[in-house]
Amino acid sequence: MSEPPASANEREALRRLAGLLPPAPPGQVWFGDDAAVVAVPPPSPEPAGPRSLLLAADTLVGGLDADFSLTTRADFGWKALAVNLSDIAAMGGSPGHALVSVVGANPDELDEIYAGILQAAEEHGCPVAGGDLSAGPALVVSVAVTGWVEGRPVLRRGARPGDAIWVSGPLGAAAAGLRVLRSAQAAMGGPGPSAVWGALGPGQRRLAMAHARPRPALGEGMAARRAGATAMTDVSDGLAADLGHIADSSGVGFELDRLPVAPGATLEEAIGGGDDYVLVFTTPPEQQLADAFAGLPAPTRIGTCVPDPRWRRLRGAELPALGWEHELQAPPGREATA
Amino acid sequence: MSEPPASANEREALRRLAGLLPPAPPGQVWFGDDAAVVAVPPPSPEPAGPRSLLLAADTLVGGLDADFSLTTRADFGWKALAVNLSDIAAMGGSPGHALVSVVGANPDELDEIYAGILQAAEEHGCPVAGGDLSAGPALVVSVAVTGWVEGRPVLRRGARPGDAIWVSGPLGAAAAGLRVLRSAQAAMGGPGPSAVWGALGPGQRRLAMAHARPRPALGEGMAARRAGATAMTDVSDGLAADLGHIADSSGVGFELDRLPVAPGATLEEAIGGGDDYVLVFTTPPEQQLADAFAGLPAPTRIGTCVPDPRWRRLRGAELPALGWEHELQAPPGREATA
Repeated sequence: MSEPPASANEREALRRLAGLLPPAPPGQVWFGDDAAVVAVPPPSPEPAGPRSLLLAADTLVGGLDADFSLTTRADFGWKALAVNLSDIAAMGGSPGHALVSVVGANPDELDEIYAGILQAAEEHGCPVAGGDLSAGPALVVSVAVTGWVEGRPVLRRGARPGDAIWVSGPLGAAAAGLRVLRSAQAAMGGPGPSAVWGALGPGQRRLAMAHARPRPALGEGMAARRAGATAMTDVSDGLAADLGHIADSSGVGFELDRLPVAPGATLEEAIGGGDDYVLVFTTPPEQQLADAFAGLPAPTRIGTCVPDPRWRRLRGAELPALGWEHELQAPPGREATA
Repeated sequence: MSEPPASANEREALRRLAGLLPPAPPGQVWFGDDAAVVAVPPPSPEPAGPRSLLLAADTLVGGLDADFSLTTRADFGWKALAVNLSDIAAMGGSPGHALVSVVGANPDELDEIYAGILQAAEEHGCPVAGGDLSAGPALVVSVAVTGWVEGRPVLRRGARPGDAIWVSGPLGAAAAGLRVLRSAQAAMGGPGPSAVWGALGPGQRRLAMAHARPRPALGEGMAARRAGATAMTDVSDGLAADLGHIADSSGVGFELDRLPVAPGATLEEAIGGGDDYVLVFTTPPEQQLADAFAGLPAPTRIGTCVPDPRWRRLRGAELPALGWEHELQAPPGREATA
C-alpha cells in the first residue's frame, strides 16, 4: 500500500471518519473514547427465551480476498461488514454493532473502504460503533460484530435424519459474477474496475454485483429460526462445503434432489462456488415456512438429511464430483437449473 | 512472514486452536459455529443503573508494534489482548469475551501468539470466544473485546475544574523496559529475545516485563468508577498525551505537582513514555479512594484540573518541554521520583 499514514494522521483520520458516522443515540458513545458504549436492547414483549449475545469476526486481506482490478475498495469495505453480518444471520440473530480495524490504507483508500462499510452498515442496520486504524505493509480490514438472539440461536449441529434441507435463495451468482468480471477483464486487457464493469451487460452486472456486494440474509435467518430451523449456516465456501459443515457437526448425511441455480450461473458454480451468502438450513420434515417467511423470498427445499454421514449426494451422484473446488472449469452448456 | 498457511490448513489450525481453549460453559458456543454465542451476565443484586455493553478493538502489526528481536510472539499475543482489556478498564468495565483475528502467521508463530493471548485471557478473565485466521503478507493481530458496566461508564469528557487527578500506578516502566532491552541488544550484538533477556539483571527484567507484558488495570478501573471518577483513560501514548485527551474532551487544563516514577525509569519516560497502561482519572476534589481501592495498589494524586484548557503544567513547567515525544533521549542521572 502506498504511504501508510503516520500515527498523528491516524488519529486525525479516525476523527474525520467519526464525523462521517451517524451520531450515537443519547446515552451511548461511539468512537472517541477508550471503548464504545452501546445499549443492551430491551427484551421483546414476548421473549422466546433468555437473550444471548452473538459475536463474530472476519478479516479480509487486500489482494487475497479481493482483486482490485475487478472490484473497488468500497466493494471491499462492504464485503468486510457483509460477511460478518452473514455470520449473525446464520445464527438467526439480529445485528448489533460493528467494530472496524483497518491496517495499511492510505487516506484515499480509507475513505473509499469506509464508504462501502457505511453503506452496508446503513442498509443492514448495524452501526459502526468503534474501531482502529494502523499503518502497515498490507491492506487488512478486520471487522467484529455483535448480534442478539432471544431464545435458541440456530447452530450447525442440530440437524437430524429426515430433516428437510432448504436454501434461502438461488446459488452460484457470486461465482458466476467473478467469472464474468474475469472474462470482461480479459477482453478489455485489464484496465480496472470501472472499465471492466462498463463492459458488462445488465444480466452480467447483476451477477457481478452478487460477487462484489453480497447481501447478508438477516431477515431470512431470523425467519428460519422462528420457523424452528434445526441447523443453519451461510454459504461462504460453496454449498457442498457448507452443507458439509452442517453434516459434519450434526452427524448426518444428505440427499439433494434439486438446486436453485441463479440465472446465468452453472450447476458447478451453484454447488461449488463460494461467497453467495445465502443460508442453508434444516427443519423438521413437515415444517411449513410460508408464514415465517411472509414478505421474504420463499426458501427452496433442496433435499433431506439421511442417517449415513458419508452419504452426500445430488440425485445419486457424489457431490465432490460435481464441483467441490472453487476454481472449477465450467463446461459450456451447463447453465442448468438442477 | 514465512509460509502463510493455505485455506484448508487454516481451518485445521483453527480447529486445533479451539482444542486449546477452555470449553464454553453450557448453553454457550465458542468457536466452531458461524458466530460465538455468549451469555449476557445477570445483573448484580444492587445494580448502579442500566447495564451497557462496552466494545473495543485494537490491532497490532508485527514489526511496527513489536520488535521480534526484543520480545517474543507470545508477548505480542499477550499485548494484543491486554491493550484491548485496558480500554475496558479505562471505562470502569469488567471484561466479557474476546475475538481474535490473526493474519499472516505461520503455524509456529500462530501457536506462540495464541499461547500469549490465552495466558492474558486466563489471567484477566476474558475468554477468547471466537476469531478468524487468514493468510497474508504481514503479521497482523486484531482483537475485539466486549465488556460490561452497570451504571455510568467513565468517559474522558467528565473532568471539571478543581477535580483531583490520580494515576493508578507508577509511570515510565514500559518505556524504561524498552530502553534496557535495546541497550542489552546493542551490547549483545542483537541475537534475539532469549539472549537479550538473559543478559538482563532482575531490576531490568522487571522493567522489560512492563514493556513486554503490560497489565490492564481492570480492578483499578472498576474501583475508580465506584469511587465516582469523573473522567478516565489509560496511559497508552504517555501521560502527557493521554491526560491531554481528558483535558481536550473535558475542556479543562491541569496542574501537576508530583508524578510517581517507576524505579529505574526517568522522569521523561514517566511523562512521555507510552504503553504503561496505568489509568489516569479525575475525581471530585475531596473524594477519598481508600475504601474503593481496598486490596488494590493505592492510586497517587498527581494534580488538579484547572479552568484554562491551555494550562498543562508540571510544577509550573510546560509538559511538552519535559517529554511529549516517545523517542526522547533520556539524559543520564535523571532517574528521579518527581
